[in-house]
Amino acid sequence: MTEDKKEGLMEKIVSLCKRRGFVFQGSEIYGGLAGTWDYGPYGAELSNNLKNLWWKMFISDREDVYAVDTAIIMNPKVWEASGHVSGFSDPLVECDKCHHRFRADQLDHENKEQNKCPDCGSKLGSERQFNMMFKTNIGAMEDESSVSYLRPETAGGMFVNFKNIMDSIHPKLPFGMGQIGKAFRNEIAPRDFIFRSREFRQMEIEYFVNPKDWEQSFEEWRQTIISWCKEIGLNEDNVHELEVADGDRAHYSNRTIDFEFDYPFGRKELYGLAYRTDFDLRSHSTASGQDLSYFDEENKERFTPHVIEPSLGLDRTILAVLCEAYTEDELGGEVRTYLKFVPKIAPVKIAVFPLLKNKPELVEKAREVYKELKKEFGAVMFDDNGNIGKRYRRQDEIGTPWCVTIDFETIEKDAGVTVRDRDNGEQKRMSVSELKDYVKSVLNS
Amino acid sequence: MTEDKKEGLMEKIVSLCKRRGFVFQGSEIYGGLAGTWDYGPYGAELSNNLKNLWWKMFISDREDVYAVDTAIIMNPKVWEASGHVSGFSDPLVECDKCHHRFRADQLDHENKEQNKCPDCGSKLGSERQFNMMFKTNIGAMEDESSVSYLRPETAGGMFVNFKNIMDSIHPKLPFGMGQIGKAFRNEIAPRDFIFRSREFRQMEIEYFVNPKDWEQSFEEWRQTIISWCKEIGLNEDNVHELEVADGDRAHYSNRTIDFEFDYPFGRKELYGLAYRTDFDLRSHSTASGQDLSYFDEENKERFTPHVIEPSLGLDRTILAVLCEAYTEDELGGEVRTYLKFVPKIAPVKIAVFPLLKNKPELVEKAREVYKELKKEFGAVMFDDNGNIGKRYRRQDEIGTPWCVTIDFETIEKDAGVTVRDRDNGEQKRMSVSELKDYVKSVLNS
Repeated sequence: MTEDKKEGLMEKIVSLCKRRGFVFQGSEIYGGLAGTWDYGPYGAELSNNLKNLWWKMFISDREDVYAVDTAIIMNPKVWEASGHVSGFSDPLVECDKCHHRFRADQLDHENKEQNKCPDCGSKLGSERQFNMMFKTNIGAMEDESSVSYLRPETAGGMFVNFKNIMDSIHPKLPFGMGQIGKAFRNEIAPRDFIFRSREFRQMEIEYFVNPKDWEQSFEEWRQTIISWCKEIGLNEDNVHELEVADGDRAHYSNRTIDFEFDYPFGRKELYGLAYRTDFDLRSHSTASGQDLSYFDEENKERFTPHVIEPSLGLDRTILAVLCEAYTEDELGGEVRTYLKFVPKIAPVKIAVFPLLKNKPELVEKAREVYKELKKEFGAVMFDDNGNIGKRYRRQDEIGTPWCVTIDFETIEKDAGVTVRDRDNGEQKRMSVSELKDYVKSVLNS
Repeated sequence: MTEDKKEGLMEKIVSLCKRRGFVFQGSEIYGGLAGTWDYGPYGAELSNNLKNLWWKMFISDREDVYAVDTAIIMNPKVWEASGHVSGFSDPLVECDKCHHRFRADQLDHENKEQNKCPDCGSKLGSERQFNMMFKTNIGAMEDESSVSYLRPETAGGMFVNFKNIMDSIHPKLPFGMGQIGKAFRNEIAPRDFIFRSREFRQMEIEYFVNPKDWEQSFEEWRQTIISWCKEIGLNEDNVHELEVADGDRAHYSNRTIDFEFDYPFGRKELYGLAYRTDFDLRSHSTASGQDLSYFDEENKERFTPHVIEPSLGLDRTILAVLCEAYTEDELGGEVRTYLKFVPKIAPVKIAVFPLLKNKPELVEKAREVYKELKKEFGAVMFDDNGNIGKRYRRQDEIGTPWCVTIDFETIEKDAGVTVRDRDNGEQKRMSVSELKDYVKSVLNS
């Protein structure tokens, strides 16, 4: 991304997302709730397209990954064993006077040195650790015995089901478990739109391997993530692999690559690929007293499988594809904004217009074409609202790759429809069946 | 369902679900967490099939319903306005001695009359109201000012986004919003497997209408729910419409139909269809100070839209289709168990077997057929584990409609494959292309 493009880009994207129905602030009419976001129609469809693509690439196209869908509220022992209860915290400081709270590691140099509140200038209290898990009480008693947590990552639900999968499906190593689901972190300072929120969606795989094979699996999943980034239209120049240094990795990991993306607010973590060793199964085995080992029939050896974890955040993906897609150019002498999504993730594939709304013969034909295309592609929209220019601008901002107009030539001369390309604004005339073949070939490429 | 079939049926279904990887107890290796469940591979795929069918029937096939995906943690003012903070509670009694807790309205007559604990026989304390929303604290401060709730229904997220949808999409009445998502209720006594759990998934539509049209919309959605039940294979004899009487309806509703299903543990609510009047938009408008009215251009009148709400529980749907599908019969002189899912919801559509695992030519051909079918239908499984009889039994219990075997005649005489029908055990020989056409025609019917 050029510096020029970055200038004010986040504000523009947030504004477009609200204006066009991609993303709204959570509980907005009540003044919002910090760190929560609601997806509107196009954001929900974009989410679905990305989820389906991930599901296909990471689960269904493979034979060795089993889907699960596990609970958000888990037995607190899960998070004691995983280390989250004792260690999943951020350093917090609070102002003695205005009681505003800050993440100690995000204070700027001056405030930190002088122990001064960035908001009111008074003295900051001493640093303490703040656990980021949301706590709740389960059952009718509200005391320590009933404390539960909302999962801070979907991974835990997979580790505790390792034994269930072994007992029911009896897979051989290597195999994985995968799920898409919500996770929750009580961020002290949620920020950067949907990048760091308190409620977010993860697409995670836990892939169990014989420890001697970990490097090969790690490399295969690295390649899968690279293919995924390409598939969803991220420019490879904007994605960077960061080999996380020994001292900086999570306590459970022997190797981690952060896939970082050049967001307008800086280069930040998009995905993580971690070699978690046997930390999780071993910890849960010790804490639960259950045998979570694996018996290799071929070599007659018993061991605890090791884990490779490709972890993808859905909301960070959406923000990345929005940043990547957001484009301003000049078309026909006017500045326009459009979202250059790769067609397979675009929330609307085709918009169908009757040239004029008040000509029944045009509307009727347009409805007919609309129905035919919708049956084939699903995500097709009928749009007769406003003049053609206004409709193009709307579809450009939604990121619709193709706008199809039914005009008098369509009905009088059987001359096909005009198909307008989002990216260059060019219009071509073709029959509906040519259009269908063309769209199919693009979507399957 | 006959009384005979009901006998012990729940135990059998719970056992099959665990044995075959449909549903596991939540946090099972830690002794579980009451009222939470984890879906295993076949349960997750069954869930997806039902979600996709619902999405198609209730959202994508229509032009007037907009998808959203809203946050689970909302501003507490949402639940004050909706009446949940003050009124969403169950009557609770606690034993003075053993401190076990019970829902007062579920005590049997004797215990209730004598105010006696069902567990230890001691005296029960007096009844109090227990709010069923899970409470948590958002942000770094743990006090009243930071209290939030996990949503007890997905509906709230739609009402508070009414204005956002109006401002971004500008739809005309009638139109709806729909979403699939998790909701949470801190049940005092979770029970009946996945029927009444503390964490569950809803598929809800809020459909906004001109009040004069509510009856027509109500009837249309009633028909849609009836079609849905048929589509997913529920026998119409097992689904009953209960017109909820005046005194029994929720405070916001002027008409409610409960769609009840004959579960093995009794006739219980499966779905709800409610006419919620303008209660929600009016309450949120008053509480938030935002204008949530609608201006009808045609009649130049401004009013608050009324709401029809078809509310479907996904987990209750899964339990209903499991109960409906669970069948025991005799086949070839042996008792067998199978799940008679309608093919479009079956987690696995086709299983492909090489007749023998140790004949490379059979395995190779079977892999080729498997790949071809998987490309076409996705949910296809390769199974070479154990003898053919064992594989049939496994696929029967998973509910796979068709098992395809590659034998020597397939490769030596080009005689096609054998296709075994789950429901009657009959085998037919056909070519792979005939099989594909046949499966396609069944899935699209």
